[in-house]
Amino acid sequence: MADAARHERTAHQLRMLSESLDSGRYGPVRRLVNTLSPAEIGNLLESLPSAKRDVVWGLVDPEDDGEVLLHVDDEVREGLIAAMDPDELVAAVEDLDIDDLAELLDDLPDTVIDEVLKSMDRENRERLEQVLSYPEDSAGRLMNPDVVTVRADVTIDVVLRFLRLRGELPDNTDHLYVVSRRHQYLGRVALSQLVTHDAGTPINTLMDDSQPAITVETLSDEVARQFSDHDWISAPVVDENNVLLGRITIDDVVDIIREQADYQVLSAAGVSEDESLFSPVLRAFRGRFTWLSINLATAFLAASVVGRFEATLAEIVALAVLMPIVAGMGGNAGTQVLALMVRGLALGQVSAANVGTLVWKEVRIALMNGVLLGLVVGVVTLVWFQNPGISAVIFAAMVLNLSCAALAGVLVPITLRRFNIDPAVAGGVILTTVTDVMGFFAFLGLATLFLLRG
Amino acid sequence: MADAARHERTAHQLRMLSESLDSGRYGPVRRLVNTLSPAEIGNLLESLPSAKRDVVWGLVDPEDDGEVLLHVDDEVREGLIAAMDPDELVAAVEDLDIDDLAELLDDLPDTVIDEVLKSMDRENRERLEQVLSYPEDSAGRLMNPDVVTVRADVTIDVVLRFLRLRGELPDNTDHLYVVSRRHQYLGRVALSQLVTHDAGTPINTLMDDSQPAITVETLSDEVARQFSDHDWISAPVVDENNVLLGRITIDDVVDIIREQADYQVLSAAGVSEDESLFSPVLRAFRGRFTWLSINLATAFLAASVVGRFEATLAEIVALAVLMPIVAGMGGNAGTQVLALMVRGLALGQVSAANVGTLVWKEVRIALMNGVLLGLVVGVVTLVWFQNPGISAVIFAAMVLNLSCAALAGVLVPITLRRFNIDPAVAGGVILTTVTDVMGFFAFLGLATLFLLRG
Repeated sequence: MADAARHERTAHQLRMLSESLDSGRYGPVRRLVNTLSPAEIGNLLESLPSAKRDVVWGLVDPEDDGEVLLHVDDEVREGLIAAMDPDELVAAVEDLDIDDLAELLDDLPDTVIDEVLKSMDRENRERLEQVLSYPEDSAGRLMNPDVVTVRADVTIDVVLRFLRLRGELPDNTDHLYVVSRRHQYLGRVALSQLVTHDAGTPINTLMDDSQPAITVETLSDEVARQFSDHDWISAPVVDENNVLLGRITIDDVVDIIREQADYQVLSAAGVSEDESLFSPVLRAFRGRFTWLSINLATAFLAASVVGRFEATLAEIVALAVLMPIVAGMGGNAGTQVLALMVRGLALGQVSAANVGTLVWKEVRIALMNGVLLGLVVGVVTLVWFQNPGISAVIFAAMVLNLSCAALAGVLVPITLRRFNIDPAVAGGVILTTVTDVMGFFAFLGLATLFLLRG
Repeated sequence: MADAARHERTAHQLRMLSESLDSGRYGPVRRLVNTLSPAEIGNLLESLPSAKRDVVWGLVDPEDDGEVLLHVDDEVREGLIAAMDPDELVAAVEDLDIDDLAELLDDLPDTVIDEVLKSMDRENRERLEQVLSYPEDSAGRLMNPDVVTVRADVTIDVVLRFLRLRGELPDNTDHLYVVSRRHQYLGRVALSQLVTHDAGTPINTLMDDSQPAITVETLSDEVARQFSDHDWISAPVVDENNVLLGRITIDDVVDIIREQADYQVLSAAGVSEDESLFSPVLRAFRGRFTWLSINLATAFLAASVVGRFEATLAEIVALAVLMPIVAGMGGNAGTQVLALMVRGLALGQVSAANVGTLVWKEVRIALMNGVLLGLVVGVVTLVWFQNPGISAVIFAAMVLNLSCAALAGVLVPITLRRFNIDPAVAGGVILTTVTDVMGFFAFLGLATLFLLRG
């Protein structure tokens, strides 16, 4: 329940802030805002209506402006940038790391970009251009080209003298990278080794070459997986010739992991990952309408199945009362299997070698649930409608639909993955279409066969 | 599509492995397994049926055994531990970090625990006991008590001499912690500062005291939030008197973030977080049956609403064909709102100050969707059943149910949170119950009022 505690605290802050803003007392707002980290300020700005957001944005310490812009969604960022003078913007972004600057650049007005580029030295300008030349979800965009490199044939003493001359290291530097004369990546040396070994120790005796470098085209999802599989804090990025280009640090990877999780939850519910709770009505409407339209089409498909049994329903109205139960329970049972499959597929745990095992396991679980829940439904039906025929038919339909749901839960995501469609997005709609259609068809079909007065 | 590429690769490995195991050729399996990281081996073991799992487990390099045990779920871990001799187990776990050892300890047989405790020196034994004295989801369990501390009044030179005497630093050490004589936390010094400043620089001029320490009782969810809000790599853990107890590193936090994401996705689908794709049938059945039973109860509730309109359905069978559309579309629209609300609540972006704004925004979106989709449904209904009355009623019912879904989407999660119930778990069932009941009631109710031959 940490979420609850946190909710209380931030909700309290929001309320205080809201009251202060309403009464025009900006002093307390400024004090509150400047106790927060850039990520927390970003979070706060996202949750304010746009008029209040602009007021609070004006109260943020200009030193934090650049970092805050990195911590808000695209929509809010556009609004904040629009509210700033070119001078303020240049001041806000010119001290950012290259990788962070690259992330913001697309959203900045051209005049500001020109100013920022002018204010950079040639080396950094070239680095920025290099980072921008890679696709947006690749290691090349995530990396910071500002890395500290050393040669293998020097001693710790030489390295320490070099570092003292160089001064401050890039944020989160935990390793120095060892490169060849042609700047090819050879391995890394931890700062903790530099400070625990004698000054005369040569770097090549300390060098760790066991961590593979990330190639610059690697997609960011794969970068995140490698980091969490290997518990890395940072990793070198190289081009196809093994030339060192930069390094990725875990704080950026944590952002990716959070975004992936958000994406999975939101897209399964039919919400675009760009939408937030505070998106403008029209934009939110457009995104959601598309999803609802797809669902409406599948709903008509299921209704058309029911439509084929109008004669049966006209004769036995109880079937209309009970049919949503059969369809709905199939959907619930299938969703359970789907959720496990989506995770298993993402972890690479599903292959042709074990699909058979999984299907067999899920069908057995479905039969157990089907028989047990079918019995419950059958008994309740018998008590309710006093008709053993309907009771038997709904029992059979439950067993059938839950088995069908298990099959669909395993096979739908595998099939989608084979066609390169993300099962986390499309799996749910397809699965519930199958269970609705099958649920109605099995229940009304069996009733038509066995219960109609012929 | 990194997932797809990864899926291909790991699926290929799984297939190769499976074939080699089937034909009894263990050489290639051993070679493949020992190219993987402990996390990857863990992932592989989880995806194998238990007979093959035991064979592969026997082929893992004993040096990796301890780390692999840390990277599998509880169920698989129990099985692997059961397959090991006490001697093997002691060898596997005795070199682990204290925090990792604490995580495994509950699963080890008592004789092994005794052996491991005996093999540790007194200091480490006391540290382990201290870690174990904190609740399982607290900072105290996450922390590693093995930290390197320095005094504020010494110079870099003294620190470097001390570190060279001490030798190897704990994994992922990026900062040394500065403490008082009474071991109270004062601040931290980055290793990168030690290597970039002159040897004569006193520590107190370099010390950064801006990062607050984490208190030992902090819940792990809150620890994860602080790390990602502040982009920390590591953080000190203190007791209520500010005495330094240990440090938490980001690799453990990444695991928490992943687990949170898994929990949210699985629990929303009604699967226990302990279940995996490869759990035994009986265990999986029990977990899922509970969830399905709850859903069955709500399904009967919705059916009882339909039951009240049997007379209406008997007269106009078309209503039975169409009613699942109204109920289902409400569920879909409400789920969209719920997903955004659950995220907003977790981020602390929702408070009494903006509930009104959110409700008004969602109701407007719902009216737009309701009118547009209602028109589509109305026209299709008119073409299908040639009955303008049914067409008008379904239009009105769609607008009503989508508005109701929007209200429920905002208010259900807020209410659950107020009662300290996780809206990510219970929100979906309650929401769809509301939209089913309201969908059936609005549609059949309006039809009864306006369409029945009186």
